[in-house]
Amino acid sequence: MEDLFDSFASVRKASFALASSSIEERRRALKAISEILKREEEAIFSENRKDVEKAKEEGIPSSILHRLSFGEEKASSSITGLVELSRLPDPIGKIREKRELDPDFILEKKTFPIGVIGMIFEARPDALIQIAGLSLMSGNGLILKGGKEATRTNRKLIALIKEATSSFSFSSSWIMGIESHEEVDVLLKAEKYVDLLIPRGSNGFVRYCMDHTRIPVMGHADGKCHTFVDESADLKKALEICIDAKTQYPAACNATETFLVHRSILSSFLPLLDEAFHEKGVSVHADSSCLRYMDHASLMEKGDEDKEYLALECNVMAVDSLEAAVDHINLHGSHHTDAIITENKENSSFFTSRTDSADVFVNCSTRFADGFRFGLGAEVGISTSKLHARGPVGLDGLMTTKWILKGHGETVGEYSGKDGKSFHHKELI
Amino acid sequence: MEDLFDSFASVRKASFALASSSIEERRRALKAISEILKREEEAIFSENRKDVEKAKEEGIPSSILHRLSFGEEKASSSITGLVELSRLPDPIGKIREKRELDPDFILEKKTFPIGVIGMIFEARPDALIQIAGLSLMSGNGLILKGGKEATRTNRKLIALIKEATSSFSFSSSWIMGIESHEEVDVLLKAEKYVDLLIPRGSNGFVRYCMDHTRIPVMGHADGKCHTFVDESADLKKALEICIDAKTQYPAACNATETFLVHRSILSSFLPLLDEAFHEKGVSVHADSSCLRYMDHASLMEKGDEDKEYLALECNVMAVDSLEAAVDHINLHGSHHTDAIITENKENSSFFTSRTDSADVFVNCSTRFADGFRFGLGAEVGISTSKLHARGPVGLDGLMTTKWILKGHGETVGEYSGKDGKSFHHKELI
Repeated sequence: MEDLFDSFASVRKASFALASSSIEERRRALKAISEILKREEEAIFSENRKDVEKAKEEGIPSSILHRLSFGEEKASSSITGLVELSRLPDPIGKIREKRELDPDFILEKKTFPIGVIGMIFEARPDALIQIAGLSLMSGNGLILKGGKEATRTNRKLIALIKEATSSFSFSSSWIMGIESHEEVDVLLKAEKYVDLLIPRGSNGFVRYCMDHTRIPVMGHADGKCHTFVDESADLKKALEICIDAKTQYPAACNATETFLVHRSILSSFLPLLDEAFHEKGVSVHADSSCLRYMDHASLMEKGDEDKEYLALECNVMAVDSLEAAVDHINLHGSHHTDAIITENKENSSFFTSRTDSADVFVNCSTRFADGFRFGLGAEVGISTSKLHARGPVGLDGLMTTKWILKGHGETVGEYSGKDGKSFHHKELI
Repeated sequence: MEDLFDSFASVRKASFALASSSIEERRRALKAISEILKREEEAIFSENRKDVEKAKEEGIPSSILHRLSFGEEKASSSITGLVELSRLPDPIGKIREKRELDPDFILEKKTFPIGVIGMIFEARPDALIQIAGLSLMSGNGLILKGGKEATRTNRKLIALIKEATSSFSFSSSWIMGIESHEEVDVLLKAEKYVDLLIPRGSNGFVRYCMDHTRIPVMGHADGKCHTFVDESADLKKALEICIDAKTQYPAACNATETFLVHRSILSSFLPLLDEAFHEKGVSVHADSSCLRYMDHASLMEKGDEDKEYLALECNVMAVDSLEAAVDHINLHGSHHTDAIITENKENSSFFTSRTDSADVFVNCSTRFADGFRFGLGAEVGISTSKLHARGPVGLDGLMTTKWILKGHGETVGEYSGKDGKSFHHKELI
């Protein structure tokens, strides 16, 4: 444990240097990483093939194999991602508020890196590259634990990233990998060195982290997303959106798990949906009202409405009204991403205001909930917490702020009592 | 427990109505509260006198009596505070980000109330008024537990606030008080109804809350603040600032506990400081280097540098350099508020960038760390956490955000693959 703490202390030390490095240096470092990953891609692919081989032998499900495998296409989009990230404005030192308390007595709220991030994520090598890029660009030190199926790939990636950044002012110590569950337990105890934990994975795992650490946790938990097809929906749009929301990448947390359909359009909409889902191989669990119109569906069972399928499987349920749809979502959803399909502006505005979720969408697929698509450069996860960061978390969510007040000898005494000076609080931005 | 949960559920229900109330209604409600508090002030004072009487009988220390007593002056400034708060811009529905993902496909990040806040605070009736005002203005339901010494005053204040808001759309259920420790323990278990806990008080108490709840906690903890007098300080300014930082209100969390003085100015500065502190009745604990120049001081003991005195008592220590001052502060401080007194711009910029505290001040008193003085309207506390809110927490810290994406049938499928559409991510603000 002490040895590992020493390594964490080195990450912390490097993180201070990283936090005060210039944006030019951080951009050069991102470029160096993208170059080494390109140059060494065959070596990475080779390690990845060994990981995939082993996973296949162990009978790992295909959805995980899909995430685990890292080839030409993922490498190229990861590298493009790093280059795009480096073009974003510097997230450090942004002035969020600026106010003159009194002439020449200036208060600023400025962004600073949080410090050291502990990130625990699934077996996805492209996620490692994205997370490392975001940490570096945002000036945060990083301790990484990837899914064990990707051990060899991750080891190679981290070694290359360290190599690419070894000659920079912050040294290669800004990033380190850990591998075992025992090391994760040490990480959970490392509140002296780590400022924020971001565990991705099952709700149970996120809860385990929260219950075993004093470090703040940004939970990336369940995605029990809903799409509500309102009375006034354009049924053609609705159909395309529903298919996309379920089938475009069913293993994603932003895929829709339950479709709510307004009772007045069951007979017109459900036969179309039934046919389309059947064609795409989606197993539908329908409530008794919907089942009448869906020949290929089976009857929902108790508890189905709370499931996250992450597969070509979903629920279809009838609701009596917009209000009932919102109530159902707030009760059974995971406050992640929920959409309404409607041509009625009042209804969409009610839905966006009342639905208590990180992402609330109108007339588009829940699958858009993603840092890249949102224009955040990338994401470390999607937060379903209401504090600090909510929804896709990019550079902005990895920053804290500092209040900086610059005076010329001001005392609170001068500003006190009946004859004291008063503040004029003039906004400067 | 179930009864109390029912009451919490009513607060939650009212909080939804409050969250969608108009700013005009919330402003009228603040006005109604300020009017009833003015009209009924004699009744409030009378309850407060009973609380003070009882506290005196029980031998409560004078610093707590000072916070507990609520008379003409505090009433008037509390009421002014409510009026000023109502003049601030509506914190709900502010657009923090706005981006076109593609023509007419618009993403917005908008502010929304967090939901229900559980607030546990010391025996300060004026704090109750401030916290209630902030919650109402920010659209959040509120469950309050004030210090037990103020029980009668708090009960009266909450009854009046309920009376004043009973005819509004959100009903008087938006606010409730709890009184016993047993009720606090129920509050800690109320994660179904409460979105955020803000415990103020000792570090031990904040830690107790964190260890006994699944609700996110915004900790308002220790204020171990430092003032560093740099080599190049203007000694006249420095002296005035040091006196203010220690003596203007020693019981405040933003009062300085340890003064660090650059070794090169010990002989010129310390005799002045010694005289001034002696005159103001401050007991000084000096390290051996400083003691030589401070006739009225005593020698520091081991552990003194980690103390929060909250009284006319402080440490004075010599440091060899700016870097040493920053290191000392980062190690021994509580990341609350720390100041440098210097005429050297490079030094102040090093200090503000390297000091890892919520508030970092240049040439002014640490006592300025306060929501009113910062122009935030008021504060629910000063957060020493790096997440969500850091430093004085006003309306802004009581808001979360929602991402709202409005499309016209967009699917992720259209934006995928080699021939897919691409995002143009045009910033609209």
